[in-house]
Amino acid sequence: MHQATASMINPDVAAIPMSKREAIWKAMEGRNSLANLASGNPDMVMPEPVRKAMRDHVDEGYARYTDYYGFKALREGIGCMLEQDWSLQADSEDAIIVTCGVQQGLYVVMRSIFKPGDEVIIPSPHYGTYYQNTLACGAKPVLVPLKESDNFVPHFERLAAAVSSKSRAIVFCNPNNPLGVVWSHQTLKSLADFAQAHDLLVLVDEIYRDYTFNGEPLSIGSLPGMAQRTFTFGGFSKSHLMMGLRIGFVAGPPALMHTVKKLHYCVVLCPSVISQTAALAALECTDADLAPIRDHFAAKLDHLYRRIKTLPSVSCVAPGGSFYVFPNFSRYGSDAMTFAIRLIEEAGVVTLPGTEFGELGQGHLRLSVCATEAEVSEGIQRLETFILNQHG
Amino acid sequence: MHQATASMINPDVAAIPMSKREAIWKAMEGRNSLANLASGNPDMVMPEPVRKAMRDHVDEGYARYTDYYGFKALREGIGCMLEQDWSLQADSEDAIIVTCGVQQGLYVVMRSIFKPGDEVIIPSPHYGTYYQNTLACGAKPVLVPLKESDNFVPHFERLAAAVSSKSRAIVFCNPNNPLGVVWSHQTLKSLADFAQAHDLLVLVDEIYRDYTFNGEPLSIGSLPGMAQRTFTFGGFSKSHLMMGLRIGFVAGPPALMHTVKKLHYCVVLCPSVISQTAALAALECTDADLAPIRDHFAAKLDHLYRRIKTLPSVSCVAPGGSFYVFPNFSRYGSDAMTFAIRLIEEAGVVTLPGTEFGELGQGHLRLSVCATEAEVSEGIQRLETFILNQHG
Repeated sequence: MHQATASMINPDVAAIPMSKREAIWKAMEGRNSLANLASGNPDMVMPEPVRKAMRDHVDEGYARYTDYYGFKALREGIGCMLEQDWSLQADSEDAIIVTCGVQQGLYVVMRSIFKPGDEVIIPSPHYGTYYQNTLACGAKPVLVPLKESDNFVPHFERLAAAVSSKSRAIVFCNPNNPLGVVWSHQTLKSLADFAQAHDLLVLVDEIYRDYTFNGEPLSIGSLPGMAQRTFTFGGFSKSHLMMGLRIGFVAGPPALMHTVKKLHYCVVLCPSVISQTAALAALECTDADLAPIRDHFAAKLDHLYRRIKTLPSVSCVAPGGSFYVFPNFSRYGSDAMTFAIRLIEEAGVVTLPGTEFGELGQGHLRLSVCATEAEVSEGIQRLETFILNQHG
Repeated sequence: MHQATASMINPDVAAIPMSKREAIWKAMEGRNSLANLASGNPDMVMPEPVRKAMRDHVDEGYARYTDYYGFKALREGIGCMLEQDWSLQADSEDAIIVTCGVQQGLYVVMRSIFKPGDEVIIPSPHYGTYYQNTLACGAKPVLVPLKESDNFVPHFERLAAAVSSKSRAIVFCNPNNPLGVVWSHQTLKSLADFAQAHDLLVLVDEIYRDYTFNGEPLSIGSLPGMAQRTFTFGGFSKSHLMMGLRIGFVAGPPALMHTVKKLHYCVVLCPSVISQTAALAALECTDADLAPIRDHFAAKLDHLYRRIKTLPSVSCVAPGGSFYVFPNFSRYGSDAMTFAIRLIEEAGVVTLPGTEFGELGQGHLRLSVCATEAEVSEGIQRLETFILNQHG
């Protein structure tokens, strides 16, 4: 009978792997004064123009439903930004929808364009949702290793070997969470050639775009021939510290966005009105509002990387952006989860095991610089002490 | 090739019918001073305690990610409310998740528990999403007519005739959008018996619960034997005029909610932090905050119904709750969409055609009392004049 029997669930949804992160939270319980290098919540407030717009909205007092796909003015503003800053042409009526963060955008796009049996190429280690959503859509994730020895740059022979007649798309983020790398313009051009040669759609998550520290950002969708096969995801979570407001966008080919829009309405009706109000204000922020935020993270990430590099028998690819580094601690613990839990219990430092980003992350930890400068420094200090004690 | 070809989309998502509402918006374009009896946006601000909590949140300035399933305190508060006011037992850890409105809750539950080939019984006319989501999950909607001649009360022989070996669930809202009726305790008990006799899950949308004007609300999930087969959806959109904040909840059987949670994370990561803050404050609102809102809508709905009843050759089932009445204008226009557009163009009144709630709504219009008292009055006046002119 139907009641409460887990066997009656949808097999695609049942196949979604549960994050194992709970083991980390369990290990943290009851321990005070941990230094947290795992957090995704930056310790900074939203820019004042964003907060002012939200205050005005609350004072006005209404919380109305909006256009399903977001305020017209917001879609137009995002379209202008994409054209001027990202070199992307995306019509605000046909090609852009405002979403409850990149996560929701990814879901509705993936569920709209993938069919059972389709294969989705995911360079890995990867952000977990790319893999989970592929399964949730009944499609098959095909992980292609990004190797530390290649500085986590894609290896095109390996990519080509992963292509089959069922391959539909490649999904990645740039700058990369969890790897911290930013792929070069040449790599992105090669990826564009690869997508065209194998007739793949491209889903690119650019949520960390403003945190590109090693040059000018480049959107793969702006390259010749790519507009009609690329979905570009972005948002205000990282650039404007608005993560909890859950507001972002996706720009994609109109013929496919038409279908994505139908599912978007079914899934959320419309994004939050106050989050859209905040996003409109975010578009008006100046470099004076945002540069201090970027500089703050760049300095913390640089500091973290330099200190990690001094640890004996720990390798680490230089970060080019984002909030993360992804060092290799396999010399000290072959199982990343076991090692991460040991670090909490014995060193008082919280990190995420690389396996939270797929099995190819084994042996690595993801370290973030979302905590305060003091907490990040304390975390590195504790890591150093712990590592040096292993040698003692 | 893949680029921009709509034929490459997921067939389930492709099957979602597009709302035809755009024809209404088109007809409204360029026409000033229309009286809007179609709006779902009440012309009232959120209660002051909710606004104060939001202001404090903005002043604090952070917008952090939260627990995927909502603040623990919010889930606990909702659990208490469900126990005390709804007579539902739902554990805040295992049985409740906070969602971006009922829409998102419905989607993740339906997609998690329905499989291709499953049949879903939907008493109709119905809220459009129940039908759209069923298709989006690859399942089959089975519409069972609610007849005006039965006062839109379900007819159990017709319901039983719709059951097959593939029937999985029945989905409905109470109080009803668009019909305006509230089913009696006896009807809900019969529905519970029906669900148990045919081993159906029940998805009940109680978003208008606080707008029950004809007696005490009753949750079908509180009836004997129903807890383990009922998903109850609720939220703050209507009761606290927080619709644009997109915040609600679902309570359901833990063995199935375990799977729903995985999909919820993939779809939205977590609900908006400021909307959750507002919802926490909403739980603390007193009757002094809320009774004036309820009374205001009750008075407007009663007024609208009384005036509709005076129209010649227009029948209308008495509303028991919600913001709506669903009168039958078939004497004046056999096609509801054509008639609704005529009303905009010739009478300056905006309504929704009953067919927006399924083909069984043909001949009816949905009238709402979300506009100001003056605008509602003006709308009725114009309707009256138009109808009387048809007789002249």
